[in-house]
Amino acid sequence: MHEECGVIGIYAKESEVVPQMLCFGLIALQHRGQESAGIAVVKDNKMQYYKEMGLVQEVFNTSILNRLHGDVGIGHVRYSTTGESYASNAQPLVVRYKGGSIALAHNGNLVNANAIRSELEDDGSIFQTSIDTEVIANLIAKHYHLGMKQAIVESVKQIKGSYALVIVMEDKLIGVRDPNGIRPLSLAKLEDGYVLASETCAHDVVGGTFIRDIEPGEMVIIDQNGVESVFFDQSSRKAVCAFEYVYFARPDSIIDGRNVFVSRKEAGKILAQENPVDADMVIAVPDSGTAAAIGYAEESGIPFNVGLIKNKYMGRTFIQPDQKSRELAVRLKLNAMKENISGKRLILIDDSIVRGTTSAKLIKMLKDAGATEVHLRVCSPPVIHSCHFGIDTPNRQHLIGAVKTLSEICEAIGADSLAYLSPEGLIKGIGLSRNELCTACFDGNYPMEVPENGDKHIFEK
Amino acid sequence: MHEECGVIGIYAKESEVVPQMLCFGLIALQHRGQESAGIAVVKDNKMQYYKEMGLVQEVFNTSILNRLHGDVGIGHVRYSTTGESYASNAQPLVVRYKGGSIALAHNGNLVNANAIRSELEDDGSIFQTSIDTEVIANLIAKHYHLGMKQAIVESVKQIKGSYALVIVMEDKLIGVRDPNGIRPLSLAKLEDGYVLASETCAHDVVGGTFIRDIEPGEMVIIDQNGVESVFFDQSSRKAVCAFEYVYFARPDSIIDGRNVFVSRKEAGKILAQENPVDADMVIAVPDSGTAAAIGYAEESGIPFNVGLIKNKYMGRTFIQPDQKSRELAVRLKLNAMKENISGKRLILIDDSIVRGTTSAKLIKMLKDAGATEVHLRVCSPPVIHSCHFGIDTPNRQHLIGAVKTLSEICEAIGADSLAYLSPEGLIKGIGLSRNELCTACFDGNYPMEVPENGDKHIFEK
Amino acid sequence: MHEECGVIGIYAKESEVVPQMLCFGLIALQHRGQESAGIAVVKDNKMQYYKEMGLVQEVFNTSILNRLHGDVGIGHVRYSTTGESYASNAQPLVVRYKGGSIALAHNGNLVNANAIRSELEDDGSIFQTSIDTEVIANLIAKHYHLGMKQAIVESVKQIKGSYALVIVMEDKLIGVRDPNGIRPLSLAKLEDGYVLASETCAHDVVGGTFIRDIEPGEMVIIDQNGVESVFFDQSSRKAVCAFEYVYFARPDSIIDGRNVFVSRKEAGKILAQENPVDADMVIAVPDSGTAAAIGYAEESGIPFNVGLIKNKYMGRTFIQPDQKSRELAVRLKLNAMKENISGKRLILIDDSIVRGTTSAKLIKMLKDAGATEVHLRVCSPPVIHSCHFGIDTPNRQHLIGAVKTLSEICEAIGADSLAYLSPEGLIKGIGLSRNELCTACFDGNYPMEVPENGDKHIFEK
Amino acid sequence: MHEECGVIGIYAKESEVVPQMLCFGLIALQHRGQESAGIAVVKDNKMQYYKEMGLVQEVFNTSILNRLHGDVGIGHVRYSTTGESYASNAQPLVVRYKGGSIALAHNGNLVNANAIRSELEDDGSIFQTSIDTEVIANLIAKHYHLGMKQAIVESVKQIKGSYALVIVMEDKLIGVRDPNGIRPLSLAKLEDGYVLASETCAHDVVGGTFIRDIEPGEMVIIDQNGVESVFFDQSSRKAVCAFEYVYFARPDSIIDGRNVFVSRKEAGKILAQENPVDADMVIAVPDSGTAAAIGYAEESGIPFNVGLIKNKYMGRTFIQPDQKSRELAVRLKLNAMKENISGKRLILIDDSIVRGTTSAKLIKMLKDAGATEVHLRVCSPPVIHSCHFGIDTPNRQHLIGAVKTLSEICEAIGADSLAYLSPEGLIKGIGLSRNELCTACFDGNYPMEVPENGDKHIFEK
Repeated sequence: MHEECGVIGIYAKESEVVPQMLCFGLIALQHRGQESAGIAVVKDNKMQYYKEMGLVQEVFNTSILNRLHGDVGIGHVRYSTTGESYASNAQPLVVRYKGGSIALAHNGNLVNANAIRSELEDDGSIFQTSIDTEVIANLIAKHYHLGMKQAIVESVKQIKGSYALVIVMEDKLIGVRDPNGIRPLSLAKLEDGYVLASETCAHDVVGGTFIRDIEPGEMVIIDQNGVESVFFDQSSRKAVCAFEYVYFARPDSIIDGRNVFVSRKEAGKILAQENPVDADMVIAVPDSGTAAAIGYAEESGIPFNVGLIKNKYMGRTFIQPDQKSRELAVRLKLNAMKENISGKRLILIDDSIVRGTTSAKLIKMLKDAGATEVHLRVCSPPVIHSCHFGIDTPNRQHLIGAVKTLSEICEAIGADSLAYLSPEGLIKGIGLSRNELCTACFDGNYPMEVPENGDKHIFEK
Repeated sequence: MHEECGVIGIYAKESEVVPQMLCFGLIALQHRGQESAGIAVVKDNKMQYYKEMGLVQEVFNTSILNRLHGDVGIGHVRYSTTGESYASNAQPLVVRYKGGSIALAHNGNLVNANAIRSELEDDGSIFQTSIDTEVIANLIAKHYHLGMKQAIVESVKQIKGSYALVIVMEDKLIGVRDPNGIRPLSLAKLEDGYVLASETCAHDVVGGTFIRDIEPGEMVIIDQNGVESVFFDQSSRKAVCAFEYVYFARPDSIIDGRNVFVSRKEAGKILAQENPVDADMVIAVPDSGTAAAIGYAEESGIPFNVGLIKNKYMGRTFIQPDQKSRELAVRLKLNAMKENISGKRLILIDDSIVRGTTSAKLIKMLKDAGATEVHLRVCSPPVIHSCHFGIDTPNRQHLIGAVKTLSEICEAIGADSLAYLSPEGLIKGIGLSRNELCTACFDGNYPMEVPENGDKHIFEK
Repeated sequence: MHEECGVIGIYAKESEVVPQMLCFGLIALQHRGQESAGIAVVKDNKMQYYKEMGLVQEVFNTSILNRLHGDVGIGHVRYSTTGESYASNAQPLVVRYKGGSIALAHNGNLVNANAIRSELEDDGSIFQTSIDTEVIANLIAKHYHLGMKQAIVESVKQIKGSYALVIVMEDKLIGVRDPNGIRPLSLAKLEDGYVLASETCAHDVVGGTFIRDIEPGEMVIIDQNGVESVFFDQSSRKAVCAFEYVYFARPDSIIDGRNVFVSRKEAGKILAQENPVDADMVIAVPDSGTAAAIGYAEESGIPFNVGLIKNKYMGRTFIQPDQKSRELAVRLKLNAMKENISGKRLILIDDSIVRGTTSAKLIKMLKDAGATEVHLRVCSPPVIHSCHFGIDTPNRQHLIGAVKTLSEICEAIGADSLAYLSPEGLIKGIGLSRNELCTACFDGNYPMEVPENGDKHIFEK
Repeated sequence: MHEECGVIGIYAKESEVVPQMLCFGLIALQHRGQESAGIAVVKDNKMQYYKEMGLVQEVFNTSILNRLHGDVGIGHVRYSTTGESYASNAQPLVVRYKGGSIALAHNGNLVNANAIRSELEDDGSIFQTSIDTEVIANLIAKHYHLGMKQAIVESVKQIKGSYALVIVMEDKLIGVRDPNGIRPLSLAKLEDGYVLASETCAHDVVGGTFIRDIEPGEMVIIDQNGVESVFFDQSSRKAVCAFEYVYFARPDSIIDGRNVFVSRKEAGKILAQENPVDADMVIAVPDSGTAAAIGYAEESGIPFNVGLIKNKYMGRTFIQPDQKSRELAVRLKLNAMKENISGKRLILIDDSIVRGTTSAKLIKMLKDAGATEVHLRVCSPPVIHSCHFGIDTPNRQHLIGAVKTLSEICEAIGADSLAYLSPEGLIKGIGLSRNELCTACFDGNYPMEVPENGDKHIFEK
């Protein structure tokens, strides 16, 4: 399961290291996308960009950064799926329109992109990528005669779905968050400017001091006059993606006032209250289950320990293992701590279950290593609906929570007992109110109408 | 001096090796562009493409070709300049429009691209590249409602300049040549289909049998019904680029009925008639001066010999030589054949002189090697006007023929005597009539109105 | 600080995936060396090898593995230093000698390599690398006439220092551990063969069942007859490197009967007993301090929590940061968990202190994030002597423990208090007896005579 | 058919661009080997080297050159065969011996390398490569106690075969040519030093002034005192490789007083005298047949013209063509000039015939292009014996001249007539006396005893 993207924008007129700072920020956001990375910078109306398939540190090096000059810029990392992916879909998207050049980077997913694209094509527009961002760029260009600010406002009023957008246009840095605020976007102060980023962990690595989250339905325009705020749509309820807290965001990030680690740990405590079990040890599926496991242990009084060791050198791509060695391959990533768990009754904490295949392998590994019991406690409710707002969940039929009962799942994965956190528990753990969160993947309660056909990647050239 | 591009298109419904054949063709056209290479293929309405900076053999390998499937396709090689060049400008350009996908590859230069782009931008169009091809794609998309054939016709009627275009649209292969026929484009028959290419040497490597040149102002549409011809503009005079014969095209190619080698050799004979000189030996600047030198020798009775040896391994990029070794660097490319020329009076045949800097270095090298006299004979008239139709000539102030007199040039390059072929001689050598050729770079007689401002690359994002 | 190397050897006559399994094992050992990786395999007396600079997954891919065939083989990963390093120093070393081919991979450091090399050079031997392994290969070749077994025995009797060696010779797999057993080496059973590895975590990923550690001064010869054991030197005391337990080895590995995680956690408990301090929270420097922190927390009753978040995407090489951004660069690797630590008195657990520079940065980061007190507890004694047996410790003058008093160090790193684990505490934590361990880096008590001049890399071509 | 190698050495104590000049020289020698390239330089007793698979311009770039510092150095290019080849076999070979470091680069082939290697192995020597150079390095190291000069002399006295050696040892540049002088090596003066190279074309690109060829059996030692000459063996007759003149050397090079182009042209004249034929045109197989074709035309009075065009962009490696397109693939390299040859009776001049397969394809291509007759004239005698001295000729059974009669060959290749140059004609063309040349590949008259078993690459690890 993969988050779609991470974005960053920096405005620092006195700085000479904006391209480098953008890269630093993207490294901090790398967990949000490992497929491609790119930055676009502008200086004196000259726009330059570089983007390529790969991790930030594979795409950029000193020689490339030395060729890029700008004091305003944006950056983007894109997710990796197992399927085919194209370099032409890397972001930022840089286009020329009547008023000059514009660069855009987008995190989220539009539910009416195809409809708008079709309308634009009716008027003769052409498309060179399959990313929603190109639709947004076209809309802004169509409205350029209204002036920059109004052109963006009119454009985002037409699009539906989730979006945290950073834009460079007319030497300004612009940030936009969708009316539901589904994807996060926050603002920090630099010594000589500002930074916008998907997560606050990116503020930290560029030396930013957190100011505030961008509000749902808000656009900020950053230039030499500071930060101007425009509220373009306040008719919708806030609906921050609960899955950011559950799995995607970095634990040290703060989203809409709630720290991710603290949310997970709190949820872990509630999980312990809701689903206690007698056992010898609480262990986590690293790394995303760690905070919840610490909370569970604290609440239950059962000691926390390390039961699974992660190989930090196990990268993304490797030799395709043959059938015989496929089973071994899982051990390349995680290995059981025999000495800690042998003869022990374990409570295994995972952040969520999507397909259930990994859970089954891990439980088998733990039992092979001598665990006498493995009680799986999942720190979120069952995922039973696809996400339409930027999380790459599989179709419903592959969501184990949607097709199997609790006891069927428990049997399928080989656990001695299985329990999920309740929706209420999750919401309480996160610490926002129910009507400030999007919990659609758990309850189907989408904050807006979504297409019947849930496929998110139907556009192909 | 660099030719802008080479194009190829193949329609071969029964073939499974169209991607490979496109690559073979592009290798044969590699002399027309060494900056980037790309192909686009379609099969059952699924368009795929691959393009990258580099030579054809650097860009493509078996593993990439195996991922590309199609029985109709086009290919493109792009020129290399010393300035900045972007991967995003590589061709073919593949876009989605209302009717599906379209791939275009273009050789030539439009003189009204900026004006059209500006109009399109008025309507809100955006541009992602700085290539004329994107303008053409936009025009076709604007007219899509007219149907494919008419959409292309209406589009090319709006553009002015030179263009040999190959297009894949609706599973058909389309070729278009501008009303003056400035850039070459010719058609050949394959066992199971057709091939269009900038030069006939590309027919040969894919096993094609030459049928005919595409006519100026003609569009051909190739599908399962064979070749349909549409004449969209016959109001202009033919104006085939004379420089294709002088320098750019491969000697084994036939353009509009005249073989390039034969043209050069004939011109060399006429050069001997027009500008005889008493000497011991005729030598060529390899490789483009060889044919003319053989002709000069044959006509003058002075023996042809090899005076300069070319290092065939001297590639494009290398260690930037420091001041001290810069002079040596020229010898990496060409070296003098001391034994042949020592004590000899030489007639040195070059195809053309643009800036004059290379000529000076070569003459010095020949004299250092013992030549007692070096009489430079240039097998084309002085280049005194910039090209607006796709040849990367420098601005007028850098054209030595435009800023210096014959005797000044002779002195500047250190020759014992200097003579150019007359315009009449060149035309006679080529073998087409004067009003079938564009000789604007020699006489300023452009076949259409050209912009005052001759800069060809003013569009920058 | 870097471990020198990791080694693996596999004998599996019925297997067709030995090259792949060797790579799996090397990935599990990747923490022992990130500079280069290589494997050598033999089948029917044909030796093949591949080695290159880079991580295992950068060096190997399916196409390379498909070219390597063998049912007996060895692999090696090599450490990375900041200084210059040569591809020619990558291992395994494959040489031809009178009896055929031999491949060697070595973890450790010889203290008399220069002396032996000098003697060999007296006889006219030449050296192509600067690795000790080439000295060993020469010795074996000198003694080839004694037969394989005796040739190795005579050779290792001449060398002094630390070595865990895996060798392929005459289609057999041989493992050798130095008489002190300084570097670890252990044996496991495969379904159809055997595996030797520096750490047991490598057994796990190839499906091996642990049999036993190779004894100090023992050589094992593995062939179709099984495992033959030869004890070539039992005159020395056992002296397993204590630093393997403190820092280098993977927590899930078992070395000489003691699990690394358990050792660290036990040591953490003793640290709490020896150096208690009143505080609100115990946090670790991830990842090597985690086990000790859990132990400290358990023993002290002060809750364990996460105070520093590690960016798992922060790789080895990157843009050289300029002075201004250098300070930010540390945040690319580790970031403080403000919410957890703000207003809190922290006990920070690190595994060891070598230079002290990182400690200072982390403590500043924690205080900037709001920690009111930071008490550093180090889970090993001060490092005051250089290692001569394969750990890349700096020279004494750069060891903060050797040049500063406890209070000076405490001040230098900005901690509110500082305490180290006692030597006795460490030994008790590890669980071996004092005279089974090498603790020379802490107490200077080297298990053999070491050269006055401690430089370990004095050989340069 | 491939030449084994090219070597260069530069001594220029005042120069700061020796690494760059070595690369320039290697580019000029690139035709002698395209598999690997490398240089080794020394400054103040510090030896550095860099070598890699690939062309000089692929292996070296500015960043690599900037890391190499030296005022004395050597360089090497190695041939490419279709079979397996190893990076470890790249040269120069740099080794450490008792006296310090030594770098060697070798062009040629030893006929007693295996015997010496076996003797060295008896004494316990190990070998890491399969190149003869390692044997030579071992011999020098064995004799180091005699002092540098005598150590080299004693070593080369033991080896048999062909060798042009350049060596850096004790900060001096040394050149050695075997007692028969089979491989070329010549000396030139630089402004501030000296250059040794396989061919004089490499002198030219580094600005050298030719002094003289190194004599057979001579060693030169170049240091601050100038050039010292040592004749170590004058008992053998001179036997310069005739094939250097026929095919391998660059036309602008002078070997032992005879320019290669002039030799070929003279031979072409004699070929015309010996084997006249009535025809319309003389054409060459480019590029190696060009000089002879010009000579043949001059002598016969039949006009020279271009009949085959070479694609200068057709590189070494490419998409493996399938069966169907394999026939087309030959056209990627050479294409027929239809206009010149159609309806013509051709005399096709090739430098030599080894296997005969290319000749057959070319003659078919010429006839398909309309040639009415093709008379092949080969400017050397039939190759009927394998070379043991560094030319990669196939085994006898693949030499068409060894297994077929003249008329069988003529039929096999589809020529209308076929004639070879006589041995006497070749010798006369080259201009050296018969007993100064090695013509063994034509007449079996080897200048020394050669092994029965002609395989040259029997050593495999």
